[in-house]
Amino acid sequence: MVVKIYGTGTAVCSQRVMHCLVELGVEFELVEPFGQVPYIVDGDFELFESRAIVRYYGAKYVGKGPNLLGRTLEEKARVDQWLDAEAINYNPLVFPIVFNLFVLPRSGVPGNKAEAEAAVEKLDKVLEIYERQLSKTKYLAGNEFTLADLTHIPATRYLVENCNMDHLITGKKHVKAWWEDITSRPAWKKTMSFVESRVSHFYP
Amino acid sequence: MVVKIYGTGTAVCSQRVMHCLVELGVEFELVEPFGQVPYIVDGDFELFESRAIVRYYGAKYVGKGPNLLGRTLEEKARVDQWLDAEAINYNPLVFPIVFNLFVLPRSGVPGNKAEAEAAVEKLDKVLEIYERQLSKTKYLAGNEFTLADLTHIPATRYLVENCNMDHLITGKKHVKAWWEDITSRPAWKKTMSFVESRVSHFYP
Repeated sequence: MVVKIYGTGTAVCSQRVMHCLVELGVEFELVEPFGQVPYIVDGDFELFESRAIVRYYGAKYVGKGPNLLGRTLEEKARVDQWLDAEAINYNPLVFPIVFNLFVLPRSGVPGNKAEAEAAVEKLDKVLEIYERQLSKTKYLAGNEFTLADLTHIPATRYLVENCNMDHLITGKKHVKAWWEDITSRPAWKKTMSFVESRVSHFYP
Repeated sequence: MVVKIYGTGTAVCSQRVMHCLVELGVEFELVEPFGQVPYIVDGDFELFESRAIVRYYGAKYVGKGPNLLGRTLEEKARVDQWLDAEAINYNPLVFPIVFNLFVLPRSGVPGNKAEAEAAVEKLDKVLEIYERQLSKTKYLAGNEFTLADLTHIPATRYLVENCNMDHLITGKKHVKAWWEDITSRPAWKKTMSFVESRVSHFYP
């Protein structure tokens, strides 16, 4: 039974879900719909919210690919901590930067540069906290790649590649090494190739 | 060993963590600090982010109090879905309402009423989705009280009791019944009594 992901290939939330399934070697089909996306249909089970979806597959296919959830209660809690930090403190700052400096201008609409600049200033402070963490552990939640890292990739890629904001990442030694490491993962590269190919069915 | 919660009793994030520990019957001490709060110290383990903290204790004390996490993979995923909905779609709308209509005016600063009204309009639409869900299941993630419900209580209480916004809740049949049910839980009443008593040590 093929997992169906209802979503848009270029959207960061869909990319988060696809990357997770590629890491785990799970076949899926991408279906582009209208309405609230992404959500998945897996047999008769439906689920919304990209971070809830990656948690679900991390648990369902534990042992199949890399361990994305953490192993002990405390490791899992650290993964949850950084997943929440991404959703609550990181993504709400990346969004107005990408929206005003890339999404709007690409459609011929001038973005609000002041709003983007204010977010850049705050994001730089948040990334200082990341730098401190990554000076202690190789990945955010410890010494293994987990969902804590995975959830950061899609939006950060737009920031780095489309907004001239790579200095936010490359200006910090440990954040830079982390970014190079997590984006060189074969599963992430496969996810990007899948998005660019515009085919709708992923076979592991 | 007593769990230490570093936070402020009146803050919604601290109340979320305290309510979870009261539900589970876990002793704790509330320590009021400066800086990023709340976080917990449990032996030599430290953790930030209130939703990660309640997930940790839900898992650590599974079987001790009510099951707050869901039982099957699919139930757990639905709990995660509504935890994310609260953090990403619900709380960011409740916050500007409470901030502009209660927190600022209480300090003698006029709040931005237009910003509050815009948030009220959006929140009403979000609560229509809640109404649909609660017409199908007694609680958000199914027929048991879980973290999905628990995380909504503290901020919603300020909305209802301090912002004259009870009509958002009482105007929707199933949301109203849900709100009355979850706020009549003995553990929530104990949490509120604990906050009002201004003592710092909770004994189950």
